[in-house]
Amino acid sequence: MSKVYKPSPISGFPEYLPEIRAVEQRWIDHIRKVFESYGFCNIETPAVEEVEVLMAKGETDKEIYSLKRLQADPKDTSDSRLALRFDQTVPLARYTAQHFNELVFPFKRYQIQKVWRGERPQVGREREFYQCDIDVLAVDNLPLHFDAEMPAVVYEALMGLDIGKVLIKISNRKILIGLLATLNIDDVVATTRIIDKLDKIGEDGVRKLLSEEVGISDQHITSLLALSTIKTRSAVELRAALEALGVENELFQEGLNELCFVLDYLAHMPEGSIIADLSIVRGLDYYTGTVYETNLLEIPEFTSSVCSGGRYDDLASSYINKKLPGVGISIGLTRLFSVLLENGYIKAGAKSPADILMVIPSEERRKKAQETAQELRARGFKVELYHAAQKIQKQMTYAKKKSIAYVWFPPFEDGAAHEVKNMDSGEQVETTTESFTL
Amino acid sequence: MSKVYKPSPISGFPEYLPEIRAVEQRWIDHIRKVFESYGFCNIETPAVEEVEVLMAKGETDKEIYSLKRLQADPKDTSDSRLALRFDQTVPLARYTAQHFNELVFPFKRYQIQKVWRGERPQVGREREFYQCDIDVLAVDNLPLHFDAEMPAVVYEALMGLDIGKVLIKISNRKILIGLLATLNIDDVVATTRIIDKLDKIGEDGVRKLLSEEVGISDQHITSLLALSTIKTRSAVELRAALEALGVENELFQEGLNELCFVLDYLAHMPEGSIIADLSIVRGLDYYTGTVYETNLLEIPEFTSSVCSGGRYDDLASSYINKKLPGVGISIGLTRLFSVLLENGYIKAGAKSPADILMVIPSEERRKKAQETAQELRARGFKVELYHAAQKIQKQMTYAKKKSIAYVWFPPFEDGAAHEVKNMDSGEQVETTTESFTL
Repeated sequence: MSKVYKPSPISGFPEYLPEIRAVEQRWIDHIRKVFESYGFCNIETPAVEEVEVLMAKGETDKEIYSLKRLQADPKDTSDSRLALRFDQTVPLARYTAQHFNELVFPFKRYQIQKVWRGERPQVGREREFYQCDIDVLAVDNLPLHFDAEMPAVVYEALMGLDIGKVLIKISNRKILIGLLATLNIDDVVATTRIIDKLDKIGEDGVRKLLSEEVGISDQHITSLLALSTIKTRSAVELRAALEALGVENELFQEGLNELCFVLDYLAHMPEGSIIADLSIVRGLDYYTGTVYETNLLEIPEFTSSVCSGGRYDDLASSYINKKLPGVGISIGLTRLFSVLLENGYIKAGAKSPADILMVIPSEERRKKAQETAQELRARGFKVELYHAAQKIQKQMTYAKKKSIAYVWFPPFEDGAAHEVKNMDSGEQVETTTESFTL
Repeated sequence: MSKVYKPSPISGFPEYLPEIRAVEQRWIDHIRKVFESYGFCNIETPAVEEVEVLMAKGETDKEIYSLKRLQADPKDTSDSRLALRFDQTVPLARYTAQHFNELVFPFKRYQIQKVWRGERPQVGREREFYQCDIDVLAVDNLPLHFDAEMPAVVYEALMGLDIGKVLIKISNRKILIGLLATLNIDDVVATTRIIDKLDKIGEDGVRKLLSEEVGISDQHITSLLALSTIKTRSAVELRAALEALGVENELFQEGLNELCFVLDYLAHMPEGSIIADLSIVRGLDYYTGTVYETNLLEIPEFTSSVCSGGRYDDLASSYINKKLPGVGISIGLTRLFSVLLENGYIKAGAKSPADILMVIPSEERRKKAQETAQELRARGFKVELYHAAQKIQKQMTYAKKKSIAYVWFPPFEDGAAHEVKNMDSGEQVETTTESFTL
């Protein structure tokens, strides 16, 4: 026997047993179905992008994995500048720029692929993870109703995952940025990043940081907090609360109108599913209007946002001389899944996709068993054929171990009836391949 | 406007427009459905493996991509030995060894993921490509009927892809290796690799190479060719032809019996779908019994095997001290797809998954349109809402451009009827959200 190299799990690269993967697969199928039901088409982009593409917006703080061929021919440099994508937004911008003339706009696409980041792994922060993104890109102008459609789509997607209640928090960066302008606060990035921490460090923490790190006066901090603590689902209430701040600024007004439009559009959504929360600003600078975050209300172990995104006005401008405004939202599938799995929320699925295990009564009856399996498959059932004419008890034990719901006994002799046993109830009845239902 | 970096396609990393991806997605869905209908469970393994795992069987001639973090902390070596998988068989062997105690055997799994090889790209030989694999692994013994099930499964999978007739060629390496033993030919690897070229270089070519490169006598070459040119679907004929060679060798006899068993088991398959072809030996040394290759009969541009595999007796022994015999077969999806696409065989799908485009008659009726779309989605239809209350003609042009089959007109005023237009036939009729069918 050759030398054994005992492999060990690679930290940050999750891998699941079949019964857990079955759940992940069901999740992805559901999310895909919802995305398609709103008319989003699918694309996949290669795992790799040119480093220049990934860096086009300037240095990124994402830990990028670059590729190197183990046995590279030094003269062949055709893939020397390749690196794994760290998100699906940059590839989308590049894709849209590259295929601009062949796409129909507004371009509504979804993408469910893995991305890679060389970060220090921990539960909920893997190095390889699935993201489920929807984005809409348009040429020059993108109607606001797409901003409003996003929460409706992801809410439906999340509701199929058996993760309890979720709350989608919506804001509009123009409101805060408009206020900062009237207060003559220049350091927008630092200020928004501090306000973004309101949930985690509270009002006092934000007050301290804004004063110490950005040097904002107490009075202005009070204004910023008055804005950032507004939470309401009602467009009427939102307008009243924001107008009470007395801010005279066009951008502020624009953001206010946009956010009210989105709230109105989403009036039909269930109680407790959405809220305008002015503390939401998102760390990423490329967002220019609507922004989203989503909290799980019944999973205390999952503290971050499970689904985030927003409006961006010129994401593709690094790759094409066109204005392609977009809006998008992304479900951090693996992050969600791994935290839920770690904390015991994921109920394992079946070890086999089969609905039915077909028993082999004897070698002589193998052919009959095979034919029966084929007839049932033709009717849409998933049927595994047992591999040997062993004792029936052994075959049933196998079905149990693989959590296959039904065991089928083809006729043990010509003229006899088919029988099927429900492994859950233990009930065994005569049946036919034409009449059987799950 | 920031500096524009014009991205270019990366050679060997295919990327498709939505209407082409829709076809690829339909293919994958079909293949998955067939695999599951035979009880194969799904797994996914990480994109990366430890280099030691990939190399455990000795140096590989696959061009492996290793990873390097662009901003790696020199002290953190946790991912310094990672490389992208070049197939799904090595990861399967590693997975099975690593999770041995948690799996139920025979372990039947399918895997549809991308793999990466830094080869010189050409049509049909990409650097990133999908493979669709099924394998069964057992402990100590794996019944031969799994060898026989493989061609039935992939035949059904391939038949759903609209690629015309296919022929699955089956052989058993034990037959040739048994013959080589009786002829005292030691260099099995070189000899089988030359015989493997029979299809491409013909009998004379093989004769020449066997003589010049391996030094085999004319008489022995004649025996080898007498074996390698046997082609029949009938187990009876196969047995007669092989017995006529007068080979007294246990391995030869074993291979003969196994191949006859497989042919018998597949007797129900359609005419022209399978054949025993003794020239099939597969280049990979790890195959120890049954081997498969598959030719497309109606796509002359696709000359290689679209779906290959075989039986291997100790693939996992590099990672675990157990005997885990297996049998597997793999559809080279991207290779097939890219050659068909290049040669005009792929009919583009729709640019949108939507069945219906919902017209917005006016801003006032947007809410009614939204509700109608939601009712239709609840009935399982995929519905895209048009984004603005523009001229009806403009909305219909959009549906046409995105190849959406139906355009729906919600009532233009209270009490009026819904109407729906079939964009293909041009027919427009009154309808209701409860009664509409595609």
